[in-house]
Amino acid sequence: MAIDQGTAYGKPAPTYLAALTLVGAGTPMGELLRRYWHPIGLASDATATPRKVRALDEDLVLFRDGTGRPGLLHPRCAHRGTSLYYGKVEEHGIRCCYHGWLYDVAGHCLEQPCEPNGGDKRFNIRQPWYPVEERYGLLFAYMGPPEKKPVLPAYDVLEEPGAGEFLEADDSSIGSGGPAIVPCNWVQHFENVMDPYHVPILHGSFSGPQFVEQMAQMPSVSWDWTGRGLRSVQIRNLEGGRRFRRVTEAVLPTLRVVPSPRVGQYGRVESIGWVLPIDDTSYRIYVAGRVTEPGQLGKMRSKYGGKYWWELTEDEHRETPGDYEVQVGQGAITFHSEEHLRTSDKGVALLRRMFEGQLEVMKAGGDPIGVFTDPAKALVRLEAGNFLDE
Amino acid sequence: MAIDQGTAYGKPAPTYLAALTLVGAGTPMGELLRRYWHPIGLASDATATPRKVRALDEDLVLFRDGTGRPGLLHPRCAHRGTSLYYGKVEEHGIRCCYHGWLYDVAGHCLEQPCEPNGGDKRFNIRQPWYPVEERYGLLFAYMGPPEKKPVLPAYDVLEEPGAGEFLEADDSSIGSGGPAIVPCNWVQHFENVMDPYHVPILHGSFSGPQFVEQMAQMPSVSWDWTGRGLRSVQIRNLEGGRRFRRVTEAVLPTLRVVPSPRVGQYGRVESIGWVLPIDDTSYRIYVAGRVTEPGQLGKMRSKYGGKYWWELTEDEHRETPGDYEVQVGQGAITFHSEEHLRTSDKGVALLRRMFEGQLEVMKAGGDPIGVFTDPAKALVRLEAGNFLDE
Amino acid sequence: MAIDQGTAYGKPAPTYLAALTLVGAGTPMGELLRRYWHPIGLASDATATPRKVRALDEDLVLFRDGTGRPGLLHPRCAHRGTSLYYGKVEEHGIRCCYHGWLYDVAGHCLEQPCEPNGGDKRFNIRQPWYPVEERYGLLFAYMGPPEKKPVLPAYDVLEEPGAGEFLEADDSSIGSGGPAIVPCNWVQHFENVMDPYHVPILHGSFSGPQFVEQMAQMPSVSWDWTGRGLRSVQIRNLEGGRRFRRVTEAVLPTLRVVPSPRVGQYGRVESIGWVLPIDDTSYRIYVAGRVTEPGQLGKMRSKYGGKYWWELTEDEHRETPGDYEVQVGQGAITFHSEEHLRTSDKGVALLRRMFEGQLEVMKAGGDPIGVFTDPAKALVRLEAGNFLDE
Repeated sequence: MAIDQGTAYGKPAPTYLAALTLVGAGTPMGELLRRYWHPIGLASDATATPRKVRALDEDLVLFRDGTGRPGLLHPRCAHRGTSLYYGKVEEHGIRCCYHGWLYDVAGHCLEQPCEPNGGDKRFNIRQPWYPVEERYGLLFAYMGPPEKKPVLPAYDVLEEPGAGEFLEADDSSIGSGGPAIVPCNWVQHFENVMDPYHVPILHGSFSGPQFVEQMAQMPSVSWDWTGRGLRSVQIRNLEGGRRFRRVTEAVLPTLRVVPSPRVGQYGRVESIGWVLPIDDTSYRIYVAGRVTEPGQLGKMRSKYGGKYWWELTEDEHRETPGDYEVQVGQGAITFHSEEHLRTSDKGVALLRRMFEGQLEVMKAGGDPIGVFTDPAKALVRLEAGNFLDE
Repeated sequence: MAIDQGTAYGKPAPTYLAALTLVGAGTPMGELLRRYWHPIGLASDATATPRKVRALDEDLVLFRDGTGRPGLLHPRCAHRGTSLYYGKVEEHGIRCCYHGWLYDVAGHCLEQPCEPNGGDKRFNIRQPWYPVEERYGLLFAYMGPPEKKPVLPAYDVLEEPGAGEFLEADDSSIGSGGPAIVPCNWVQHFENVMDPYHVPILHGSFSGPQFVEQMAQMPSVSWDWTGRGLRSVQIRNLEGGRRFRRVTEAVLPTLRVVPSPRVGQYGRVESIGWVLPIDDTSYRIYVAGRVTEPGQLGKMRSKYGGKYWWELTEDEHRETPGDYEVQVGQGAITFHSEEHLRTSDKGVALLRRMFEGQLEVMKAGGDPIGVFTDPAKALVRLEAGNFLDE
Repeated sequence: MAIDQGTAYGKPAPTYLAALTLVGAGTPMGELLRRYWHPIGLASDATATPRKVRALDEDLVLFRDGTGRPGLLHPRCAHRGTSLYYGKVEEHGIRCCYHGWLYDVAGHCLEQPCEPNGGDKRFNIRQPWYPVEERYGLLFAYMGPPEKKPVLPAYDVLEEPGAGEFLEADDSSIGSGGPAIVPCNWVQHFENVMDPYHVPILHGSFSGPQFVEQMAQMPSVSWDWTGRGLRSVQIRNLEGGRRFRRVTEAVLPTLRVVPSPRVGQYGRVESIGWVLPIDDTSYRIYVAGRVTEPGQLGKMRSKYGGKYWWELTEDEHRETPGDYEVQVGQGAITFHSEEHLRTSDKGVALLRRMFEGQLEVMKAGGDPIGVFTDPAKALVRLEAGNFLDE
């Protein structure tokens, strides 16, 4: 009897690429991500009701003071550590419920009502905070080194709406294939953006055709560097000699630029999505896009046999897996040591190399790509879209 | 553009005072606490039905044998480790369900029915146990070094009931502001006892006035050492030149002596409460007090807009936070490294220094304060109360 | 006042025998167990629907290809790590849902549809797998070093059915006293098999008589080594000078050979059970036996006051504890450092020594007992049964 080959016995302990995946403060990717602005809520999330937020492995409290300014503070009150989630929002800040210390949106301590004279030394206190800016219906925070704070960039596809178009924002992780919060590392999702070959398999023969029919065809794919990130061009030849050219982008650091896989009409990309790493093992996606009627963004959300992801039974999840199942199915953080990348995974390999390159730039003291210091130049032009070449 | 100051970026990793907070055997505070008696149940908790008990990070089984003696044993049977929770209580002890070993309340092994002659060597076996005493409707255990076992102290306010008064005991953590078991370190609660300034803020403007109106007024506060612990005196001037003088005590090691914040009547404190550290991250409170009708103690329990804590929605917890929310909101164990104590926190600082002092006494081989060896002297006189100075 | 003796104060930190209990790859017992075949499912568990399996601390995916061959693969696809649980089973294997790599039951990669020419280098890929064999209605896997793969043994009591008898298999952990998956280390169960003294206590006076009346009588017990494992003989004298002789076996490595405690009829053992360590802190039991009508095996399952284990209230579990309660009550992994074995525990001591002996054999480079290399000799003859000596 021949001896079995290739069994699982003696398989080495698996490992993952920590520098690529971990997002906490002080980790390589955590520090790279902290050089950019990240969406941490819808503009409407900042109200007089304090709201818990988690981003880049940090817990924060979001609110909007009576003058309309959004505030994002470390949740533990600088006095005795009680959560400001229980605070009361006032005209000029948020007041801790325990002893009434009042903080403005930049963490200045304005009042200490139990102290003589309202706290002679209250100006020495600073509640840890992060700057917030509002754009496209979203709130963006900068959680990095203050002296490196860049300009919040704008994106041409959102700055130049067409006739009858207006902007809409969404926080339900359109594009995740699942619920708003996805329990795996964000890179597993971001790599998927540069992996168009999975479309005809996962979304074609497995769960569908889940999208329109031309997406189920195996494309011819190329990838290249755009100066702002990666671009993938997918060519599918249609009947009558026409050519369907789909362009997808992954822009530094977390921007997914993916035209609708439903290809309602040809043209430049309608919406862009920021992948927010909540922590090492969960992420969510904020999307902003041009629409012609309210709620249009939500129609991009995947369905499986007519059902939303959260309506599926456990058996249906197994029978019609989508992006959620394959990415969460890779584990909380996938084990890169067990992978075998091939030619069709070139986009994944390029994405990792792109991040490695930026980590090296940072290590050498430089600024990573996509960090803008000149407001006049902070407009990102995108090329993604579904195009029909006649 | 000015560079942002005081952001959360680069905030050091937070730390807590382990020597103050941890309660397990072998830790500094764990050993200090083990030099005193602690309540581990109501007298009525010890019955013929074994009951699981957790105290000072130890799991135990409580029962009462057929002769009326309460027993508190290590739960793992000395034979094969099965839990005595499944044991049967008999006239002279508890019998393990697995092989029938019978233990008395002091852990002596009385029978080994599967052994020849009922176990010739059974007298070599001792199920680990703790001594238990009954007082004020409560069961107290001594979990410390046997040679240091002190006399169980008595308290004047419970020893000398007034006309028409009788004693009542309660195990529902009256004073926690929440449920019977509170998921944070016990010191966060005990410090709150020496922190009267939070009352007009948290219980005044935030959740109320939650108590009577005079409590919502900002008091003038002093603190001092009583020889048995700390005392806080809170003065509030009332209409007509009268003075409301409220005296609160924190007695070593865990006794909270807090007059009713509802101030039903003026006079000495009605009830006292022992904070039991269940483990490092949870505690409960046992209370004993003088009442004139059954169930009167329970009426001291906090309400929020007419509702009990467990009746509140998540939104109502946020809108009307109480002691539970502020203490649990500090985290499982608060991070002392992030605190900024001020003059109004003098009671908190004194409390910590009091424990540090006792830890030093123990380290030097001495007995901490409040450990009584002479039964004739083991009566603690208290001064707490709500007083009206005309 | 005398100083208390034997209190729980200062009890040393408990420890367990890691070499006896841990089952992961690379641990002593884990490697010993990996020298044998283990049941990982019913034959009917392998179908065109992928099924999650966990055995010896490893996660695997079970399926049956279109030609009828069962496959047991490492769940993470060798390509990008997505779980093959979401795969589609085909004529010749299972296809990953992400990029369509197709694996046969021995892990060969047959197709890579996104690669040029279906993957020129696909033959370099091997999905980690384990060999599976089918017998007695069960699937057995060999998870050890390939060059040591033994012959799957047969057992006389299953090979030689009597008149009117046929074989039945069960995966519901008959004999565990509880549900199919039991949350404690498997050795706690296996030791119980060599511990007949607990029967009259636990199953006699505590929960019963749970079995027939003669089982409630304290037996006279002997243990000895059989060359294949341990045998326990339990003698009970019946009325009329007859003698009830019950023989139980624990066969290397995990086989429990326990005649029905209901003693429906005297004779050789009807069924045998393989204890499968799922991981360090849970196990399940697969049983195969001779029956005369379908569903007969399930009737051996314990009842408590007429109820199945899962029908009991928490109070009823405490009042009528069974094997589940005593074994899970010992903890996830019992602390051997706190045990006190006595003469009636000889079977437990022998069992541990048996495993220690086999660990030493392995350490010295030898093959443990019960590993068969010659198919002609791989028949195990058993002696267990309920016998009536007139």
